[in-house]
Amino acid sequence: MSAYDSIISSLKFDDKGLIPAILQDHENNEILMFAFMHREAVEKTLTSGLATFFSRSRNKLWVKGESSGHTQEVKAVYFDCDNDVLLVKIKQNVAACHTGYRSCFFNKIENGKVVTVGQKMFDEKDVYKK
Amino acid sequence: MSAYDSIISSLKFDDKGLIPAILQDHENNEILMFAFMHREAVEKTLTSGLATFFSRSRNKLWVKGESSGHTQEVKAVYFDCDNDVLLVKIKQNVAACHTGYRSCFFNKIENGKVVTVGQKMFDEKDVYKK
Repeated sequence: MSAYDSIISSLKFDDKGLIPAILQDHENNEILMFAFMHREAVEKTLTSGLATFFSRSRNKLWVKGESSGHTQEVKAVYFDCDNDVLLVKIKQNVAACHTGYRSCFFNKIENGKVVTVGQKMFDEKDVYKK
Repeated sequence: MSAYDSIISSLKFDDKGLIPAILQDHENNEILMFAFMHREAVEKTLTSGLATFFSRSRNKLWVKGESSGHTQEVKAVYFDCDNDVLLVKIKQNVAACHTGYRSCFFNKIENGKVVTVGQKMFDEKDVYKK
């Protein structure tokens, strides 16, 4: 039983039991990542202080940074007017994106072309080893 | 045939043919809204200069602001590392939220309670008349 039970119960999860979450840098408001949470992940995010998701590819609870060390320290949590989207302001350690970019949103559509605009923080093959 | 055809074809739409879009103020990076686009809405957003969505409740193309006048002028469009989320930087006219708040994310979870933190820009019953 968590202090957040009634708030979590007021959230609307989709037909797969998931709610989208937007991850935003708490200092400069940069959008860093987008992922889904199930009920348990929302509770963990609110109580543990580390952004936690539901990994659809691995079908399990996923504490962001558990393998890379690139954790996301939760600074504030908001939800929208329809109670069906979360906004989590975080302190991002190193980088949010598994490709090495600080933000997952490094592809910009410009004059009909895709331009890479992100800031590369690490080389993916050095961090995610077998 | 649009100049954006190959870019749009590289995006991943979900099993309902939709892709999530995060709407962000192009000046201060505030998150204003979250909605879904289908293929036609993405193309309209890229070519018309006004953020356009798929309304799941009305099951049709939805140019944001078409009834309220609270349009969203597109300043830049990004997509993420997995090609399955869009980030649209906009100039928001008046307010993004139909409730009258500038941002839809006016609910903050603080010490186990929900606090309203948004900036109210209009009274909803004055704008959305029958």
